[in-house]
Order: sequence, then structure tokens, then C-alpha cells
Amino acid sequence: MPTNHRLLLAARPAGIPGPANFTADALPARAPVPGEVLLETLYLSIDPAMRSWMSEGAGYQQGIPLGEVMRGGGIGSVLESRAEGFSPGDLVQARLGWQTHPTIAGRYLQKLDLALGTVEDWIGPLGLSAVTAWFGLRDIGGLRPNDRVLVSAAAGGVGQIAVQIARIEGCRVAGIAGGPEKCAFVARELGAGAVIDYKAEQDLSAAIARACPEGVDLYFDNVGGPTLDAALAHLRPGARVVLCGRISQTLAAEPYGIRNLGRLAAAHGRMQGFLVFNYHERYDEARAWLAARRRDGSLRQRLHVLEGLAQAPVGLGMLFRGENTGKLVVRV
Amino acid sequence: MPTNHRLLLAARPAGIPGPANFTADALPARAPVPGEVLLETLYLSIDPAMRSWMSEGAGYQQGIPLGEVMRGGGIGSVLESRAEGFSPGDLVQARLGWQTHPTIAGRYLQKLDLALGTVEDWIGPLGLSAVTAWFGLRDIGGLRPNDRVLVSAAAGGVGQIAVQIARIEGCRVAGIAGGPEKCAFVARELGAGAVIDYKAEQDLSAAIARACPEGVDLYFDNVGGPTLDAALAHLRPGARVVLCGRISQTLAAEPYGIRNLGRLAAAHGRMQGFLVFNYHERYDEARAWLAARRRDGSLRQRLHVLEGLAQAPVGLGMLFRGENTGKLVVRV
Repeated sequence: MPTNHRLLLAARPAGIPGPANFTADALPARAPVPGEVLLETLYLSIDPAMRSWMSEGAGYQQGIPLGEVMRGGGIGSVLESRAEGFSPGDLVQARLGWQTHPTIAGRYLQKLDLALGTVEDWIGPLGLSAVTAWFGLRDIGGLRPNDRVLVSAAAGGVGQIAVQIARIEGCRVAGIAGGPEKCAFVARELGAGAVIDYKAEQDLSAAIARACPEGVDLYFDNVGGPTLDAALAHLRPGARVVLCGRISQTLAAEPYGIRNLGRLAAAHGRMQGFLVFNYHERYDEARAWLAARRRDGSLRQRLHVLEGLAQAPVGLGMLFRGENTGKLVVRV
Repeated sequence: MPTNHRLLLAARPAGIPGPANFTADALPARAPVPGEVLLETLYLSIDPAMRSWMSEGAGYQQGIPLGEVMRGGGIGSVLESRAEGFSPGDLVQARLGWQTHPTIAGRYLQKLDLALGTVEDWIGPLGLSAVTAWFGLRDIGGLRPNDRVLVSAAAGGVGQIAVQIARIEGCRVAGIAGGPEKCAFVARELGAGAVIDYKAEQDLSAAIARACPEGVDLYFDNVGGPTLDAALAHLRPGARVVLCGRISQTLAAEPYGIRNLGRLAAAHGRMQGFLVFNYHERYDEARAWLAARRRDGSLRQRLHVLEGLAQAPVGLGMLFRGENTGKLVVRV
């Protein structure tokens, strides 16, 4: 059997997570029993939600017990199958965990349809971040042509897809990102009509007023806290606020107090959170749309690729320091 | 012509509004021109939104200019009609203003259908507060049988109807009100299964946890601020929060900072404001339902009646001090 290199959660993080929170081990991969598949991990996705899994019982899922393999989604290749429908060489998507050779029940695997896109497409513009952007904008946000759309963390994994979906659907899109490099990416590569560099702005609300002079019909929020508060002040009547992520609050000692809810009420607007997993049965619908836009060249994706499993904890830290440029993945 | 006694906005309020903000005058009623009707005011409704109309350009409508008749809805009787479809003695609902004998264009009047209920029913359980509760719970809140429903200002004009609609629809209802008298009303007369006296509680969140041990599926918010924040902490997955009123914030020097939005996101819940006026074309639908429940005795209404136009400013102050017990109206 091949050696399974693993990263185990060793210590719960106090602030930004990193290598100190993990220990590595290596042991022979476990042979699959009937119904299971032995995989080789190709890519792991690094996502903000992982930080909450590292805490005890926080967030929408149970925390990972200390000493267990770090939870995380990715793409693997089947090495050995005792599960119906899977053969060696098949590419699958699953919650593989931070390990090189997981053994997983076939019912937890989703086979990649390579007619829709490449392996890199599946980790990127067909992956869960992209699907999240799609359902968030359309089902939660009720995206309509000509909407004035504002997206925070617009250069991030979900944000960059959200900006592009809104643009492709005929909306006027403004993005918020940190630093000139990310802002240039959002404007030039993603096609946002206006960009706000939050690191360069003293007054984010005034910057939003300049970027969205007519106000905001749909705010796609990936950060929460003061950014959400500033965006609320500019809601147009009937506005929708999609609560997708709140990376600014994950590490906050005290939750930020949102002061502008009165504007949501006055604008008879809607603010809504969602779990992409609840759309599980409709992922294909999103992927068909995304794959078509990928094929016609209108949908771009920038991956920020780190090399080797050992880089996964480093990547998690980069995410919370805003150092990644694009959807962050580890090539294992 | 009869004498039209009026109350004019004389000074914008700094805090709780009252008699000092108004001056009275009296002049002959204006004879109706073609298309208009001369009315005698029977009842005026006293509502929290009026406070925002008294400020300059605040809220969802333009502020009332100083020196003009105070804006307000009510019920009147037609004295003289030059508008098609109205005859002396007809009872109508309209934004009459704080005056005894308004002259108003017929197109702004809605004739009362006395087959649905009495004049007192029309100011109460068929009035705009009741219609607001109905659309708020059903269209915005997506009320479902067995929902665990929490209503703030549960003894108030909108709240008391919201509690009863939810109960009649088969929900478990908890109400928040101030003081033992109001709480007894909410429990005994309105039929709430649990009541929270916010004035007697040190820790409102703990009190909500006791009243709603399984959490809250639908929070109907009439007060905003700390009460909203406390309720958010108890949202169940898929919860809905209806932003109907925010009386706690109308007079606040600084808006309260809401800290528990993270729970809304984690519960993939929805928070939504609304303008009842946007449902104008569907008022009949709400009134048909409310009238049927009024007839079968399942829907009760407590009016708090003040006598005489001069009491209207006093009533406005009572509303913001929480001194009214029931839907507050002035019999003119």
C-alpha cells in the first residue's frame, strides 16, 4: 500500500491558523473494504470556513476533534475501488481531508464529468466556491439584469466568480478588494466596472458611494463586519444582501456591532444567509451554466496554487491575511 | 360650513414627541371642489411611524413641513360629496390628517365595507396595523404551521394581531411586552403560549431561551435594537426575521450595534423589511381573512381609545413611553 501522509489538528488556533496548529504523520494507506475506494489526492481547496471547523463546536458544523485529520474538500484520483461505479483512474470530488491517500466510501464521492471541464476547472470555476457564488447570487440574491451589484472579497475564491456571473448577467458590478494588485485583477480580468481598494480608503462608505453612485441593489458579502455595515448604508429600495462569508469576523475578539440595519428596513430589503450544501441536488444546474461560460471564454478563474500537502497550513494563514491572489488550492 | 379644528406641526421633536410639538387652530372647513369630499373625522390612528414623519426628511417618506397639518390615517364620515361614488353618511378610510373636517379628493378615500366589520373593527382588526401584521407574517415571514414564533411589542397595535394570526395558524407563539398588565393581556387575551416581560428581565436572551426552548423559526420584530439582537441569538435553521418596526431605535441618539448577525448567517436565515403600502392591491385578501376570524371570535383586538383631537399629541408620547395598552386611537 502507498504511504498516506496526513496533517492532524494538533492545537486549536487563537488567531490566524498556521503550521503550529498541525502535526504530520505518515502510515500505510488503509485498504478499502467493500463499498470503499482508495484515492490519491490531487488538489485540496483552502477555504475560510476551515477556520471555524478548527474551533470547538463553532460554526454550522461540529469542530474537528484534536488529533484527527484536518477536514477539507478536494479532488482525487481512484487508485483502487471496491465501490460500484468507480474504477482506477476515475477523478472524483469529495471531502478528502488533508491527506495524500484517503480511503472513503463511494457514496461520499462525486465523479468529475470531464466533458464539463478540466481537473483545474473542477477545483476552480466548476468547484464548490463557484457553485456557491451561483446559488448565492441567483437563488438567494434574486439577481436581475441591470442590478447594481457590489461584491466584497471580489478577488477571492467565491468573490471572483460572483463578480463575473453578475457581469455576464448584465449587471453593473463594483468589487471591494485589498491592494492595487487585487483591484487591478478585479477590474481588468473579471470586468468589474468599479473597484474599491479597502486598504487605501479612510472612509469605506464614501468609497462605496463613489463606486455605486445610484446605490446597491444586491450586495454579495464575503467579509461581514464594518464592510457589511458600510454597504448597508447604500441599499436601494428592494435590495438584497447575500450573507455568504464573514472572514472579517472569524478572528474578531468581539463581534462587530452592525449599525445600519435601519437602512435594510427602510429599503424594505432582504438579508439572507445560506448553506450551499442545501443545494446539493441542483449542483449540476449551476455547473452546466458555469461550464458553458467557461467554454465561451466569458468566465475566468485565477487559481493561487501552493505545492505540496505541507503548504496547506501555510495557505490557511495566507487566506486570513488576505495574501492569496485568487482561489487558493494546494497541489498535493 | 363646519369649523375645522386642526393640529399643526409647530416644532420638530428632539426626543419623545408630545403636545409641545403642535399648535391648534380652527377655521371654516373648505368646501369640496368637483372630485372632492368633505369629511368629519371619527377616529385617528396613532402609530410609531408618525414620529419619523415629524423629522426632516427622515424615514421612508418626506418629513412634514413645519406649520402644516400633522399627517395621520383614520376613519371619517362623508358630510358633503362632489366625488363620484361617495354620498353623505358613507364611512371612509384615508390619510385624514389631524383635523376634524378634512376636504380630500375621492381617489384617496377607501370606502369601508361594513359587511366585513364595524367602524371599530376597521380602525382595529381590519385596519392598517392588522393588515401589516398579516402581510408581514405571511408574505415576508413565510409563516408555516408549527413554527416557533416570537413577537416583540406583542401588546401593541401590530404585535397583538401578529400573535393571534400565528396562534390561529397553528404556531407556538411567545410574546415580548413591558409590564405585568400587558403580559397578562398577551397570554390570556391573545393566547400566546409564553410571555416575556422585558422590563422584569436582566438578561433578555436568557428569557427568550426559556420562552422558546427550541429556538425561533420566525421573529416578528417591532422594536429593533437590543431586543432584535437577543432574538437573533436564538434563530433556528432556516429562520425568518420580519423587520416591521424599530421603535427602540427611533429615539436612540446612536443606532445600536447588532452583534448577532453571525447567527442569521449560520442559521441560513432571512431578515427582511417591508412597506405595507406595497401590498395595497392585496389589502382585501388580508381583510377577508381577518374579518372571518373576527366573526368566528378567534381574533380579538384591544383598542386604547383617547377622547378628542387634543389628545392625539398626548397619545404619541404614550406610544413611545410604552404606556398604551392596545392599539392606540383617538375618537375625534
